[in-house]
Amino acid sequence: MKKLLFAFLFLSITNTLSAQSKTHVDLIITGGTVVTMDAARHIYNDGAVAIRGDSIVAVGTHNDIASRYDAARTIDAHDEIVMPGLVNGHAHAAMSLFRGLADDVSLNDWLQKYIFPAEARNVMPDFVTWGTRLGVLEMLRGGTTTYADMYYFEDEVARATKEAGMRGVLGETIIDFPAPDNKSVPQMLAYTENYIKHWQGDPLITPAIAPHSIYTCSTKTLQEAAALAHKYHAPILIHLAEAPFEGEQSRAKYGLSPTAYLENIGVLGPDITAAHCVWVDPGDMKLLASRGVGCVHNPSSNMKLASGASPIVDLIAAGVPVGLGTDGAASNNDLDMFEEMDLAAKLQKLARMDPRALPAEQVVAMATINGARALHMEKQIGSLEAAKKADVILIRTDAPHATPMYNVYSQLVYALKASDADTVIIGGKIVMQHRQMLTLDQPQILAKAREYAKKIAASLAAPAK
Amino acid sequence: MKKLLFAFLFLSITNTLSAQSKTHVDLIITGGTVVTMDAARHIYNDGAVAIRGDSIVAVGTHNDIASRYDAARTIDAHDEIVMPGLVNGHAHAAMSLFRGLADDVSLNDWLQKYIFPAEARNVMPDFVTWGTRLGVLEMLRGGTTTYADMYYFEDEVARATKEAGMRGVLGETIIDFPAPDNKSVPQMLAYTENYIKHWQGDPLITPAIAPHSIYTCSTKTLQEAAALAHKYHAPILIHLAEAPFEGEQSRAKYGLSPTAYLENIGVLGPDITAAHCVWVDPGDMKLLASRGVGCVHNPSSNMKLASGASPIVDLIAAGVPVGLGTDGAASNNDLDMFEEMDLAAKLQKLARMDPRALPAEQVVAMATINGARALHMEKQIGSLEAAKKADVILIRTDAPHATPMYNVYSQLVYALKASDADTVIIGGKIVMQHRQMLTLDQPQILAKAREYAKKIAASLAAPAK
Repeated sequence: MKKLLFAFLFLSITNTLSAQSKTHVDLIITGGTVVTMDAARHIYNDGAVAIRGDSIVAVGTHNDIASRYDAARTIDAHDEIVMPGLVNGHAHAAMSLFRGLADDVSLNDWLQKYIFPAEARNVMPDFVTWGTRLGVLEMLRGGTTTYADMYYFEDEVARATKEAGMRGVLGETIIDFPAPDNKSVPQMLAYTENYIKHWQGDPLITPAIAPHSIYTCSTKTLQEAAALAHKYHAPILIHLAEAPFEGEQSRAKYGLSPTAYLENIGVLGPDITAAHCVWVDPGDMKLLASRGVGCVHNPSSNMKLASGASPIVDLIAAGVPVGLGTDGAASNNDLDMFEEMDLAAKLQKLARMDPRALPAEQVVAMATINGARALHMEKQIGSLEAAKKADVILIRTDAPHATPMYNVYSQLVYALKASDADTVIIGGKIVMQHRQMLTLDQPQILAKAREYAKKIAASLAAPAK
Repeated sequence: MKKLLFAFLFLSITNTLSAQSKTHVDLIITGGTVVTMDAARHIYNDGAVAIRGDSIVAVGTHNDIASRYDAARTIDAHDEIVMPGLVNGHAHAAMSLFRGLADDVSLNDWLQKYIFPAEARNVMPDFVTWGTRLGVLEMLRGGTTTYADMYYFEDEVARATKEAGMRGVLGETIIDFPAPDNKSVPQMLAYTENYIKHWQGDPLITPAIAPHSIYTCSTKTLQEAAALAHKYHAPILIHLAEAPFEGEQSRAKYGLSPTAYLENIGVLGPDITAAHCVWVDPGDMKLLASRGVGCVHNPSSNMKLASGASPIVDLIAAGVPVGLGTDGAASNNDLDMFEEMDLAAKLQKLARMDPRALPAEQVVAMATINGARALHMEKQIGSLEAAKKADVILIRTDAPHATPMYNVYSQLVYALKASDADTVIIGGKIVMQHRQMLTLDQPQILAKAREYAKKIAASLAAPAK
């Protein structure tokens, strides 16, 4: 009896001490397969993530976290994969309203007959707000927590993105012809300067400047855009070496590849994220690596528009951080990072005629930590590690299409779908739980999108003004 | 008052007459966008399909069908696409239990280190039953109503498929080395003859014979398999011209391409469905067309295994009926015809560097009516037309990733997903309604699949017996 009493007292004291010594956090996600994407690629099979405020406090086994932390709120992640939110490195969110407007046409027809007229006749602030909401809604439902955007009225993009609780690197477009929002480059630069000043320091939004490309911006425009970016330490987003014509024009005009030309005019640097990089030769790859440029691969768009197959295995080998992107829904036609993962792996295998090329783990890295690197945000996001932002997604693993599971990376790339994303947390805040949207009014957004589609179709049917 | 009474009587009489003159059917699907895939590619925006027994009685506008037919049961298809069930022209359903077992390895390692040992140690009748159930479950959930299968213990495949209420062309494999079910070619042929006799005439199951390929079957085996097929007018399923090594071996051994070799030995004919056809030259295409061979394109598998890009635009132009398939989940890793549609379109655009190649409507045809042609079943299935089997699927169109919709073919190929399939009807029988399985026990199948995965992983960890 004495012995028992002693044991009881001992246990009580131990429990009390341990409860007292536990650190309080806001949220613990526990019980799932935690795929950290840290440098050692730790995976905890019965893992847990502790979150305080907008940041991750600790990642480990369930027992480890339970012994050290208690939380006001716990999310049970059994039978789920817990991983860093996906990083969509290149998108035009508002173009979701043009989804499927013009498919299976030449690039010239696509631009001249459909996209440019549709943009000229429809793209106003309200269009951008609703289009961005639609794009953000789709991305969140597919486990994307950060995206890079290039469009017009980027102030509206930023507002809609922040409202949704999503993280974004959002670039206002600079281009050498009248755009829907600003009619001249000086106006564009002035708009962008105000936009950057307004949003800099925001916890979710990183304002950026997006000179469209070397074939739509003069040397002067590119240099002025870069100067503005440097003035505010803002990132630069640009389309680079996407289609064969761009290289041909660049060589004819400047005697240089698009990449070498950007280097030559002093624009290439560690603040740049370059979308596509399909037509890059070994010299270009060396330049991109040495200048710290991030590249974003967009396999769906590159295939659908017949741009080509980017040599990303070589880019990665050259030391370039390569992320993954969806491009806009007008050329994809969705914003589905699971499809991009699947396609990235399969495209490299085909392009190199080697089934070993770009294994699944590398693809998951492209969609997470390397996507963060390509956006120069690897210190804040891209992996589940203490002190990083709490951008965490939970993926269900119990669908017939994802059963059984032998390897978690294989499953993520080749079998799981955007629709398996169950819960999405950004900066510690739950924005989707069990597929219910907590920050966006889905029925209203879809109704608005259908209304806009009627207007857009009518605007193209009418003769140009 | 008299006037009112008269009007009332008139209306009553009209209604009674019209009710009396209506033909009674079992099921009317009404209110959706009916994509018929008939020769004229009729689309009815507020359409309806009338079904009696296992067949379609009429297809038309809602008003037309409502004026002519009444039904015991009606399905409201508003905001849905109503279309012919998808035809998966090439699969190995039971291999779903090997989903993701070995990815990102060379073809030789994949076969020799993983698939062959895993099959030798695990493939028994019970494995095939549960593997097939898993595969069929996934396919039904993605809108596939007919599939072609090549595997072992095909009698079990047929039983599991029929139980699920699915349509199948199911081929028992003939191969020149000991298989999991039969150890010699004479045993295989005897098994297949019994299998064919047992299942021929079944309303859902078409028994077939599946000589594996020209590199695993001798000339004699191929000819004997063809003779057995001819004796019973059974279809022949074969892998043809899949990877470069097959052509190299064929040219070295026979001085002929794989296709020309099959012609040379008298096997090529209108009973054949050939999977892959990646490495076919213009001469091969002419042969395939003139002999009435159906081809099945498997873009996911061809990309993932680095087999190559099949020239299907040229095959179609040569007059070959080209369907679409998933191949097995061990090389894909899912059985998702929506992904294959998306990939087929994008792969041709890339391979031909032409964004106009293989437009969406042609891809939907490959997944429906041309898939039926490739299986020589175009008189029974593949389109919504009177007298055809009532294999009908309803696809929701209200997901964020599929909003807005400008063109129904574009949406099906580039935006909609397997998870948007809402209701599946095969031979007039509802097998999935609002994503609830009515013929299969999903939780039991998934539990069994997880059990098998443990056994399979353990069997590969153990040294070979």
